[in-house]
Parts: sequence; C-alpha cells; structure tokens
Amino acid sequence: MAPSPPTNLRPRDAQANVNLDDLTRRLVETRALSMELASPLSSEDMVVQSMEDASPTKWHLAHVTWFFETFVLQAHAPGYQLFDERFPFCFNSYYVQAGPRHPRPARGLLTRPSLDAVMAYRAHVDEALDRFMGSSAVNAEAAMLVELGINHEQQHQELLLTDILHAFSLGPLKPAYREPRGLAAQPITPDVTMIDLDGGLHRIGHEGAGFAYDNEGPAHRCQLEPFAIANRLVTNRDWLAFMADGGYTTPTLWLSDGWACAQTNGWQAPLYWELREERWWHMTLEGLVPVDPATPVTHISYYEADAYARWAGKRLPREQEWEVAARLPGASDEGNTLATRALRPVAFDAARADATTVPQQMLGDVWEWTQSAYLPYPGYKAALGAVGEYNGKFMCNQMVMRGASCATAPGHARASYRTFFYPHQRWQFMGLRLAEDR
Amino acid sequence: MAPSPPTNLRPRDAQANVNLDDLTRRLVETRALSMELASPLSSEDMVVQSMEDASPTKWHLAHVTWFFETFVLQAHAPGYQLFDERFPFCFNSYYVQAGPRHPRPARGLLTRPSLDAVMAYRAHVDEALDRFMGSSAVNAEAAMLVELGINHEQQHQELLLTDILHAFSLGPLKPAYREPRGLAAQPITPDVTMIDLDGGLHRIGHEGAGFAYDNEGPAHRCQLEPFAIANRLVTNRDWLAFMADGGYTTPTLWLSDGWACAQTNGWQAPLYWELREERWWHMTLEGLVPVDPATPVTHISYYEADAYARWAGKRLPREQEWEVAARLPGASDEGNTLATRALRPVAFDAARADATTVPQQMLGDVWEWTQSAYLPYPGYKAALGAVGEYNGKFMCNQMVMRGASCATAPGHARASYRTFFYPHQRWQFMGLRLAEDR
Amino acid sequence: MAPSPPTNLRPRDAQANVNLDDLTRRLVETRALSMELASPLSSEDMVVQSMEDASPTKWHLAHVTWFFETFVLQAHAPGYQLFDERFPFCFNSYYVQAGPRHPRPARGLLTRPSLDAVMAYRAHVDEALDRFMGSSAVNAEAAMLVELGINHEQQHQELLLTDILHAFSLGPLKPAYREPRGLAAQPITPDVTMIDLDGGLHRIGHEGAGFAYDNEGPAHRCQLEPFAIANRLVTNRDWLAFMADGGYTTPTLWLSDGWACAQTNGWQAPLYWELREERWWHMTLEGLVPVDPATPVTHISYYEADAYARWAGKRLPREQEWEVAARLPGASDEGNTLATRALRPVAFDAARADATTVPQQMLGDVWEWTQSAYLPYPGYKAALGAVGEYNGKFMCNQMVMRGASCATAPGHARASYRTFFYPHQRWQFMGLRLAEDR
Amino acid sequence: MAPSPPTNLRPRDAQANVNLDDLTRRLVETRALSMELASPLSSEDMVVQSMEDASPTKWHLAHVTWFFETFVLQAHAPGYQLFDERFPFCFNSYYVQAGPRHPRPARGLLTRPSLDAVMAYRAHVDEALDRFMGSSAVNAEAAMLVELGINHEQQHQELLLTDILHAFSLGPLKPAYREPRGLAAQPITPDVTMIDLDGGLHRIGHEGAGFAYDNEGPAHRCQLEPFAIANRLVTNRDWLAFMADGGYTTPTLWLSDGWACAQTNGWQAPLYWELREERWWHMTLEGLVPVDPATPVTHISYYEADAYARWAGKRLPREQEWEVAARLPGASDEGNTLATRALRPVAFDAARADATTVPQQMLGDVWEWTQSAYLPYPGYKAALGAVGEYNGKFMCNQMVMRGASCATAPGHARASYRTFFYPHQRWQFMGLRLAEDR
Repeated sequence: MAPSPPTNLRPRDAQANVNLDDLTRRLVETRALSMELASPLSSEDMVVQSMEDASPTKWHLAHVTWFFETFVLQAHAPGYQLFDERFPFCFNSYYVQAGPRHPRPARGLLTRPSLDAVMAYRAHVDEALDRFMGSSAVNAEAAMLVELGINHEQQHQELLLTDILHAFSLGPLKPAYREPRGLAAQPITPDVTMIDLDGGLHRIGHEGAGFAYDNEGPAHRCQLEPFAIANRLVTNRDWLAFMADGGYTTPTLWLSDGWACAQTNGWQAPLYWELREERWWHMTLEGLVPVDPATPVTHISYYEADAYARWAGKRLPREQEWEVAARLPGASDEGNTLATRALRPVAFDAARADATTVPQQMLGDVWEWTQSAYLPYPGYKAALGAVGEYNGKFMCNQMVMRGASCATAPGHARASYRTFFYPHQRWQFMGLRLAEDR
Repeated sequence: MAPSPPTNLRPRDAQANVNLDDLTRRLVETRALSMELASPLSSEDMVVQSMEDASPTKWHLAHVTWFFETFVLQAHAPGYQLFDERFPFCFNSYYVQAGPRHPRPARGLLTRPSLDAVMAYRAHVDEALDRFMGSSAVNAEAAMLVELGINHEQQHQELLLTDILHAFSLGPLKPAYREPRGLAAQPITPDVTMIDLDGGLHRIGHEGAGFAYDNEGPAHRCQLEPFAIANRLVTNRDWLAFMADGGYTTPTLWLSDGWACAQTNGWQAPLYWELREERWWHMTLEGLVPVDPATPVTHISYYEADAYARWAGKRLPREQEWEVAARLPGASDEGNTLATRALRPVAFDAARADATTVPQQMLGDVWEWTQSAYLPYPGYKAALGAVGEYNGKFMCNQMVMRGASCATAPGHARASYRTFFYPHQRWQFMGLRLAEDR
Repeated sequence: MAPSPPTNLRPRDAQANVNLDDLTRRLVETRALSMELASPLSSEDMVVQSMEDASPTKWHLAHVTWFFETFVLQAHAPGYQLFDERFPFCFNSYYVQAGPRHPRPARGLLTRPSLDAVMAYRAHVDEALDRFMGSSAVNAEAAMLVELGINHEQQHQELLLTDILHAFSLGPLKPAYREPRGLAAQPITPDVTMIDLDGGLHRIGHEGAGFAYDNEGPAHRCQLEPFAIANRLVTNRDWLAFMADGGYTTPTLWLSDGWACAQTNGWQAPLYWELREERWWHMTLEGLVPVDPATPVTHISYYEADAYARWAGKRLPREQEWEVAARLPGASDEGNTLATRALRPVAFDAARADATTVPQQMLGDVWEWTQSAYLPYPGYKAALGAVGEYNGKFMCNQMVMRGASCATAPGHARASYRTFFYPHQRWQFMGLRLAEDR
Repeated sequence: MAPSPPTNLRPRDAQANVNLDDLTRRLVETRALSMELASPLSSEDMVVQSMEDASPTKWHLAHVTWFFETFVLQAHAPGYQLFDERFPFCFNSYYVQAGPRHPRPARGLLTRPSLDAVMAYRAHVDEALDRFMGSSAVNAEAAMLVELGINHEQQHQELLLTDILHAFSLGPLKPAYREPRGLAAQPITPDVTMIDLDGGLHRIGHEGAGFAYDNEGPAHRCQLEPFAIANRLVTNRDWLAFMADGGYTTPTLWLSDGWACAQTNGWQAPLYWELREERWWHMTLEGLVPVDPATPVTHISYYEADAYARWAGKRLPREQEWEVAARLPGASDEGNTLATRALRPVAFDAARADATTVPQQMLGDVWEWTQSAYLPYPGYKAALGAVGEYNGKFMCNQMVMRGASCATAPGHARASYRTFFYPHQRWQFMGLRLAEDR
C-alpha cells in the first residue's frame, strides 16, 4: 500500500519552473555518491548495527532507495512495479503512514535481503527514476519529491559515515574506513575573539528560491538582545584545558541531567577518545590517531558543550543568534564538507584577513550545539500524509544543531538548516562555538 | 559546612524596604499551613515514597525546614546551633554546594529520624526564625532568603499533596486524603471560544515589586505572531471524546517520543483513571470517584496534551502567548488554588459575563502545558552559590507549565510564573488549554 | 473465597493424637513472640520495604495472621467472620489458589491498613483461635494446619529481623534495633579440624514424630562417598585472610555466574561490611560495630562461599553430608538461636571437650550454604490446594541451606530442615562450613 | 601469552595408546564438517549475533580454530607461529587464564577480521595441525588436547546451527538455511507407555575407554528408588493438547520462577511457533513450516517442560534415571543426529518391535530436560589451567540435559553425556520425556 500523497506540499518552493535537467543531474550524482561512500566497505561491514541509534550501511543504501520508490515512483510513475513486495517492510524507517516496518533495533539482523539484492534494488529504482525523469509525468509535486529524496539521501550519506565510524570504534582491530592521509603540522590556534552583533528584530528561517526542509520555515521575525559570538570553534586544545581543570569532575558546571548522564556513562573525555600511555588518541575514519590540539573538538554531547561554556564563563548561542551570525558576509562559505573529502574537521585558518571579525567555519567541519530546543517555528504546519512525518514528530526532547560537518554532503548546507539530536548523543561530528550576552 | 552565601542576589527585588512584619506573618502562616496539610496523615503515611519523582510527607516537612536552617539561620543568625548535625545529610535535596546528601530514590527508607524528631526539628527552627525575625540581623539578603524559603515551602506544599495522592493511588484500599465533599450537579460545558490576540512585540517576564523566581526574568521583549487562545480548559468530557475517537491508538496524532512512551507504559487514559464495569473512575484526594465530565482534565502528560491538540486541529500555546493572555484584565484572578480548599479542579463558570471574551481559570485548577521548552530567558544568569542551583541546572529536557493548580499555595500564583516538568510526567495537577495561529 | 482445603496432608505426621494443650501453648507463645520482636520498632519502621526480597514488619505481622485466618479459621472454624474482606488481598503472599493479592514489590506502600488496624486484626484472629482451640472442631487436619501456621509464623519471625536489619542498614543514621550489649573479649580461634565420615548408604530426611515441612521428606536412602566436614564455621578472621589474598579480585576462584554477579554489584566484602578509616565495620541489629574476627562470617552469598571454599582447597558440603554430620551425637544441640537473644553469631567454644571430634554450632548462629540445589526428594509430592504452594513451586534456581541461625525461632531448628535461597542473596544470617572428599 | 598447560589431565583416558591415525582422521573430518555446515551461508549471515546467548557463524569458525591454536599448537608444536597476534583477543570465549578477550555481547561487531581472514586462519591452523599430527611431538597430553579440540568443535557445530536458526527467525524474510525436503505423511503417534525400572544402587558416569568430558565423571554409585520412564518423547500433538487445556494460563502448573518468566516474556507456545490464521507454524532450518503433530516438541524451556509434566501427572526424570534407562539394550542407538542430515526431530517409529518396552530416540532428535541441577559428581575436580574452565565454572543455576539432538555432531553422543542450560533457555533443540515414581 502506497502512502497517501502529501497535499499541502512542504518542503517549500515546489515551484513549477524547477530546472529538471539540473534536478536529474543532482539525482544521479547523489545516487552515485552513496555507492562511492560504501565502496571501501565489505559486505560484512555493511550489515552490522552497532547501537540502536545507528543503522547498517546496507540498510542506508536500501532505505533511501525505498524512499524514492515509495514517494516518487509508486505515487507518480504510471505502471511502476515494486522491486520486491517484502522490501517496504524491511526498509521503511519510521513512516507510520507508509505501513508497518521491521523494528529499528533489529536492523542489524537483516542479513537477508543480501547486499547483492540491495544493489539490484538500487539499480532497478535508478533505472525507473531515469525513465521517469525523462517522461512527462514529472509534475511540480513529483519534482519536489525528487528534490526531497535527494536531500534525504544526502542526510543518510552523513549517517552512513558516522555509523560505520561507531561500528569500527567498537571492534577490537580499530579498522580505518580509509587510509590515513598526512596531517599537516598544526599551528597554535590564536585566542577566541568575540564578535558583537546587534539585538532587535531579525528575520529568521528559509525564504526565497532553493530547497529547504519544512522545519526551516515559515520565515519570521524574532526579537534578539545584543549578543556576541566566537570567531572560531572550540578546539581540542581548549577541551584538554577544560579536562585538566576538572571539567568532568565538577558537578556545578553541569546541568542536572547532564551530570547524571556523565556519571552513569563514566564520561571523562569526548566519545572516541582513548588514553594510551598518558596520551590521548582519537578513533577516526582513518583509524586511531593522536588527538590534534589545533582542530575543532568533536563527538561531544550537548551536556558537555553546555558544561564547557559555563566553565568558560560564556554560553552556547541560541539558534536564531547563530543564524544571524551565519548571514554575515563571509561567514557562510561552504567549507570543509564532504566535498573536500577531508572526513575530519580542520584547523582554524588564523591567517584569513577576516579571521577576527567574521565567524569562521560555520558551514562545514562540525555541527554546532545551540541552546535552543527543537520546536516548531511560529506558523509551522507539518505536511499531510507520510512525508509530513519527516520532521514534525521529532519536535520534543532534542536540541537544535546548526551548521554542517566534514561529513555533510556537498551542497547540502545552508544558514537556515536545522538538525536535531538528543542532548546525550555524541556519535555525530558535533562541536561548539561560544556566545555571550552584550 | 554551610553553603556559601549567594552574592548576586536572585530572586530579584531584594529591595531594602521589604515589609518585615508582612514577611514574618507570611512566614508563620506558611509554616503553619504545612502542618495543617500533613494533619490528616498518619506517621505511616508520611514515611513512604511511592516513586522516585515523589517524596515522603515527612521528608517534605523536614527538607523545607532544612532550607531555612541552612540558608537563613546558619548564614545569617549569629550563634545559631544546628538542631542535629546529621540532618543536613538527610534532608538536603539537590544542592551540591550545600554538601553531600541521602540519595533521592531512598527517601522512603528514612524511618529515622522519626516523625517526632522532625516535628521537634520544625519547632526548633521555627523558634529560631521567630527570634531571628525580631532581631536586627535581618538585612536585605536575609529578608530575600526568608522570602525564598517561604516560596520554597509553598512549592513543597503542592508536592506534599500530589505525592500523597500518588502513594494512595497505589495502595489496595484507595484511601482518601480527606472525606469527600458533595459534588454539585455539573452543567454541560459550552463549546470552546478562541480569543484572538495581537502579534508584535510583547514584554515578557517578571518586573516590578513582589517576589519572583530568577527564572521569571529578566523581563524582555518578545516578537509574537497573531494567535488565539481558548477561553476555557479542556474538560474530561472533551477528553472522553478524544479517547472515543481513537486518541490513544492513532500514532499519527503523537510525537514520536510520546507514542513510544504511551506504548511502553500502556497508557489508555489519564493517570489515576480506572475503568470499572464500563465506567471511568478517578482516584482523587477524596478517594475514587466517578470521572466528572464538566471539570478540567488533569494528570495528563505533555505527550497526551500535544496529541489532543493535534487531534483537535489546534496546538498548545507558547509560554509567551500564555503570559500575554494571562495579562488580559480579568484573566489572572487567582481562582481555585489551595486557598479554596477544593483540592480538585472545578467546572467552568459559563455564566460569567466575560466567559467568551477573556480566558478563564488561568491561575488555579490546573497547570497548563505549553509548547515551550524550559530554557533561560535572554540575559538570565543563575545566582552564585548553592541558591543558584534552585532553577538553572534544570534547564534541559523539560517543558514549561504555566498557571497554577488547585493544590498551589494561596498567594503563590502569578502570570509570569514558570514551572517545569518532563514531558512524560503526569502526577501533578496538569491539564491544557488550546491555542492556534491567526 | 477460601482456598480449598488440602486433601493429601503434608506436612507429614498429622497423627490424630497430637497433644492439643501443647499445641495451644505453642500457638500462644509464638503469637506473643512476634509482638515482642516488633516492640522496639516505631510504626514508621514497620511500614518500609527496603528491597523486593524484604517485607515490612507490619506486613509480616498481618500476613502470618492471614495464614491462620485463611487456612485454619475460614476452613475449619464454623461461623468464623472475616475481620475485613479487603485484608486477604493485602496480606496473601504468593498463594495463587488463595486468590489475587497485592504485588510483592509494593508492600512498602501499604500505609493503610494502618498498624493499629493490623493490631486489631491480630487480636481478632487470636481471640478466634483461642475459641477454636477450645472447641470440638479441631480435627487432625485442623491441628496440622495450626502446627503449620506456628512454623510459618516462626519463619516470618526470622525474616522480620533480617528485613529490618536490611532497612536500617540503608538509612543514613544506621539505627540499632536494640541497644548494644557488651562484647566479650574474643579468643583466637584454633585452626579447623576436618572430621572424617563414612560413605555408603545413609538415611536422609525427616521421619518419626514431630513436625517437619513436606520438603524434608520422604525419608530415603542416599549413597555417599567418604567425606570430611569441618568442626567449626568459617570466621570473620578467615574471611579477612581470603580478602587479603585477593579473594574478591581473582576470577579463577569463582563460578562464572558468581564472578559476573560480584562485578556487577561491586562486591568487595560481605554485605553490611563497611570500611571506615582502614578498619572494617559491620552493620548489625545492634548498629554499626567493628568486625569481630572470632565470630562466624555471615551475610555472604553462595557465590562467595563457593569461592572461599575453592580458595581454601576444599568445597562446600552436600546437604546429605551435612545432615549425616548433624546427626552425630552432640552436633545438633540447638545452640544460639533466637532463644538466647544474642541476635548475632557467637565465637566457637574451643574449650569444649568434643571441639575437634564433633562439628560444632550446626543448629544456631548461621545458616550454612550447601553445594546442593533445592530439588524435591525422591517420591516428593506437593500437597493439593493452596498449602501445596508452600514449598514445591520454589524448587528451581535456589540452593539449599542447612542448620539455623541466631535469628531462628526457638524450637524451630532440626537436622533435616531445608531452607533455600538464590545464590546471590546475602541478607539472611548466611555463613559456611568446609567439607572435602576423603 | 599462551595459557599454562593443564597438569592433572582431564578429560579422562589420556592413555598413551590412543590411535593417532584414527585421531587424525577424525580431526580432519571434524574440521571439514564445520566448513560444510557454514557453506549455505553468506558472509553477511555469518557476521550477525542475534542475542547474547548466540554467536556469529564466523566467530564459531574462528573460535574453534583458536582453541586448537592455543591449547595444541602453542603449547605443544615446537616453533609454531601465531597466525595473527590480535586473534586470541578476538576469539577467546571465556578462558580467563588464556588472557583478555572481546566481550561476548559484542561478537556481532566483529566485521573485522573478515571472513576471508578467518578462512585463512583456519587454513593456517589446519596446515600446522597436519604437520603436527605427523610429527613426533604428539605425546599423550597433546593427543588428549586434540581429542578435546575435536569434541569442542563438534559442540560448536551444533551451536552454529541453532544460532543461525535464531538469527533467521528474527529476520523479516524468514529465510531457510536449506531447501525444504518433503515431509512424509505423519502417522498418529500411539499413547505413551511407561517402562518400569528398578531402584537400588546404580553405577553412573563415564568409565572405560573413549573420550568423555570431565563433568561425566568420576563414575560412582547412586541409590535410586524404583521409577518408570516413557518409551517416547513428548510430541507436538501432546503439546497442543497441553496448550488447549490452558497450559500457558494456569499458574498452579508452573514453578514460581517459571510462571514469572513466562509472563514477562509473553510465552504462549514453544519458541519459533507462530500463529497464522488460526494455524501454528514453526520456524525451522528449512524455513517456516506447519507444526507437525507427530514429531517431538522442541524449543521449550525447562519451565515449560516441568509444567507439562505436572499437567500430565508425571515428572521429569532425574539425570541418573535417564542414564540408567539409556543403558538398556537398544535404547542408546545413535539415531537422528547430524549424521542423518535430517536437521529436525523425526516421528516415533511405533512399528519397531521394542517400541513399548525400550525407550526410543534417546540419542538424537532432541536434548531432554532432566530434573537435575548441573552440579559436580562426587569426587569431581576441574583440571588445573585454562582447560579446567571448560565445564566446572558453570556448575550453578543450570539444569542438566541428556541425550543428543538432530543437530549434534555424528559420534558425539553417549549415555553419560551431560549438557546444561539455564531453565529459561529455548533456542537449542530441547524437548522432554516423562518419568514417574513407582
């Protein structure tokens, strides 16, 4: 049973005059990138699920395919035949309106369908998409759904990388996703500069052309007090100072829930950090490497970010403040996302002319925790139908992260983007930037 | 070891010209009210802890006393002698800076100190407070701390009632806290009227004279879109309609976390509701009584409130919207709080002249869930020292509730008041009022 | 609804010629002893349940009364009126055939019925029992059930003491159940002597006159290999040597399940032991006292006892071996049970003439772990009806303990007695004696 | 680090005159059978771990290889080089004395070492074993360890099958391990006949030539009462009658722990049974098939077996009784083990001449629950060193099963064999046979 098509279309901008050639090109590129990202992995690597929050590579590859099959091909391509009637059950994630599904914590048991079958599934759907995109059946709604499918697959590309890193981190051999590349000698990072920004009414949220998720709108005005935001991200060197000063052993620095979480889980450093013979090492996509003091800290929870900010006498930015800062000229260059293939955050370039007057590295390197809970903007309404489950039903208990990371798909980042995680989660490329009241 | 005194005083308004006579009178009244509230209970009733969220009556009586002893007498009363050196360990709740403490989940094991000892503790502290309030040692800071202690004890008065209700609800005899009073025949409640309110910049938060908690400030401007708010609370009759329409069995009405919570806990009705021979009964402070359709629904979680609002095609108000509405003339009469001794929410008075133009029952009857996460206002800074732990460290994972309930101490309610609970919690007198965008 | 009367009577020996005067006297004494044991406790002490394994004092007092009411008075006393129709639900423990019951883990929520009500319940049942025992209605079955009720209440007398000790051990004030009595200066305990015993066919189990539980029979022959058993119990001094030699940190000494249990729970010493300034203290019914090296170790699990025996190059006795040893002349003097009111195990009397040839302290001081799982004897059949649930349904996952402890009711101990606990449990007066193959 | 060699050799019968040719042949056959059993599985199938009790196929293949490498080659083959220094950490199971190891619940994360690497590991060790077996280094101890390694690998062959069945049962596609073979039309099974056996002293345990595990000895005399044992296993038809008669809803049939377990887990039928449109289906190594009434019931826990026996008015046999029966002429033919490749229990052959006078199917088809806890025989001593951890440290909390199943390796079964599982476990081929007192 196909889910009912959404009728009040979100994401926004389902304009009729979308450039279909461009859309098709991006569709093909996105589908190809997923295959490329999976290519260093064995079929064994691709089947495991290392925790409930993570999914197997194979599942990611199949699920994004199911998304196109269900919302584009079944809904809009006349005469489309399902590749396998059992696959929707296997690869639906959380769309209640799209039918029942295999339980999330058991995704690691999906040895069948095999990887070969999933590859055949991808090929089948790619072929059908190719036919469909060249046909006259592509109306505005269908085009919007293809666009959504591309963005959806891009999100899973990032998850594919963060999830396999998590799985590899728990294996005894600490395998590398790829061969290590030489690390440039790292400079001393200069002190943080706080950049003052005006209060008053600011316009927040996505507007104008270009794709955005429904949770980025409606654009609206927001009253802010004067504030300042740091020109650079918090680095591993900063974090080591926090640790050395008792950051993980001083309850008064922490939120009550955060302290309980840190105690229960025995946190003493960021996730993936490991002390070996009095030196800190860091499990990365290139395997276990020494912690680099100059690069942005990552794999920290909201609780840790918040404690760090309190220790530093500052606070985390609100998401609106972050967005205002990100709209400063020069702040939103898409930097070190997946496009650069660095697969790790890079050090701050203090030599840049605007390094002390414009916040750096806002789109790329690490997602930045904000002090804002993930809640709907004024006037937000989720789409009807299964697509409406994309974002809205998660608007509770999570915190907004802004920016983009070194694992974010190229072209996927923008200043209005809102992602969201629970305050205890750490397995994404998560870092922080300080703010304060003026 | 006494906690260090706070130096940047919050709550606000620690003005020197506080009326000491009035303060002393309210202190005495508050201390007496706690004793009165405990009076229907046996020493056995007062010792149990029915869940981790709740505390024994005896512990409440002792803890509020410890608060005065620690923050007022030890810090400000020259020569004050501790009643018992072991009591601070027993009765500190969560103030890390005030020293170690008995673990919260084990409060129900405190058969010793005995109730008699706790009563002697109260008498000892009351006497010392009486001497202190008549002395010249009461400076502005001390007066503020007495005020804080009064408000703190008032909060625990409400908890004392909700916690004993929870304990009694789990006992096989379903005992009543007090004898049932006659229930007036209940009228049919008229349909909800949505009252339109203007958008634009609104001033939010406590300002001016009078006590407020630090989390109610700083007062600040907030930009709102036009909205409407219901003139009345959602009633049990409304809730029964939601239940009859599949409210508890339709996942698309629910937040993702909410649905998981409801399934895990088998929720099919509000807490304390019980189906006996096809009729719904309700465990109350007067024992098990039939559900009254005309009175406001209560003992529902945020998840349920949110699902109801979605079912009704509306939403919950933001806390700022709620506060704007509560400042309408006539909306903030302190109604059915503990002052009336009703100990249950009462039915909407549709005969009131302003019943369709002004929101009713905003301060009293039930706390109202808002769509706002509990976060600091712009410019908020927690006080230094142990008193600073009062509010700030809980600003994560909880939702703001506004208003006051039938169990709130008299004089404790105000339009700027913010209380906060986790979205799954239900044992307080929690209800809801609908809102929508205009 | 009264449970159906058992028809194939167990316990054994329901002979017609039971001495009714003696039975009545013991009934009165037993009922009185329970009241005496509860007398040092406040009503608050009597209501708490400190863990699922333990029950509140008030519940014990009421449950044993329910047992008499249900199985004796309701079943055999013509015209007996229930004291309160709601009490069977409150005070049935685990007799499925006697109707539904309040859940075990929630016994600590029974603030109602009040202690006063429970005392009235006891008085009501005592009076009815008094009338009944003087009547002609006491047939052989009824007499057997009174005997069973007496023994049942005696078992709960021991639990009452061990359960309140557990509750007090978790309180911050470490209260004493009674005032400490002077400790005699303790001698050095001589080394253990292993006493050789013959193999061959031995008769095991209860036979002859006198009460015994059904699980002590049928008496039967059992083939044993030659073995030896220690003349004395393992002492605290012995245990300290085990600890000093890495007993708690050497996995090869432990059963696999035992090691997992010890790690999960962080065991480093017996339950109730506490290290304060480099000295071991012990929470007892007389409060926190220094560990006495000369007295038998107690409050250890089966896992610890088994690890100790392996460390000592020996093993625990099988229950049949223990029974054979206990039947040696002089071995089964009822020693330090509740009759002596010591309320703690006492030191070995090395001056006794038979101290190296006969095992000492087999009935009193501590229960002794055996290597035998709790299973039915050949030919065992549980009684029909609710009384048949007394023992049989627990014959899985538990280990047999033999002997009796300093908290066992006077007259309750005998060589064939089998009690049983899970291998991880420690809150009873549990100790050990070594054995080995010959 | 190699584990220290065991010095007091167990298993028994490390006689010098072992036939080395025969040993070598069986070694080669056993190693080959493991490869054959894994051959229907993909590399993805082989990496998953579906529950903590189960292990991945790949892990089984590597672990048995590690066993030979560690205990035979490292200890006895001069100059043997470890295949990979990291593998002992990966593939040690529970031998504390053989060094640290990867945690059991995380075996499913071992995507690396890859299956190819594990196959190379097997080839490396096979080659080294081949060289070793032809050398003069094979002393009696080494020969015994090779024998132990063969038997160890055979045990894991059974686990390999039961573990993959468990994993497949949880997948949405319910894949078959192999193609279904035609089911013969099944006869009506005749009623059970109880076969009387004498009491008195019986000799129990392994003695004489041939391999046995240490836990099968020492052989010793045991006194039994007269008893009877069923000529056939309990069938699915029998089990359906138990279910129809309320077997799963009648608490008085169950052990207390068993009832709690059944309620917690919602048991209403054997593991792998599934009701589809009012018919029971059964997940097998041949996929989902209708339950066959004539074949022995399997995948039941001890708790269920015990409840069934009580319902039938009988009991489970003690392990000694079972062994006495198994020594009857004709009873211990090795029947339907892995040698027949049936991979499922088969129906009782009522046409056999001795079908009512000799117990059938005692070695093959299903393991049989006994009423005996897994405890050491009189005189049992575990071997010193890591090999001594094989059996002894599990002698607590588990029940003995006797016989062998349709998944037991050919030649692995014997009358004295003792395997052991926790009473709640169901994923092995577990069934039952009734017994009773005479």
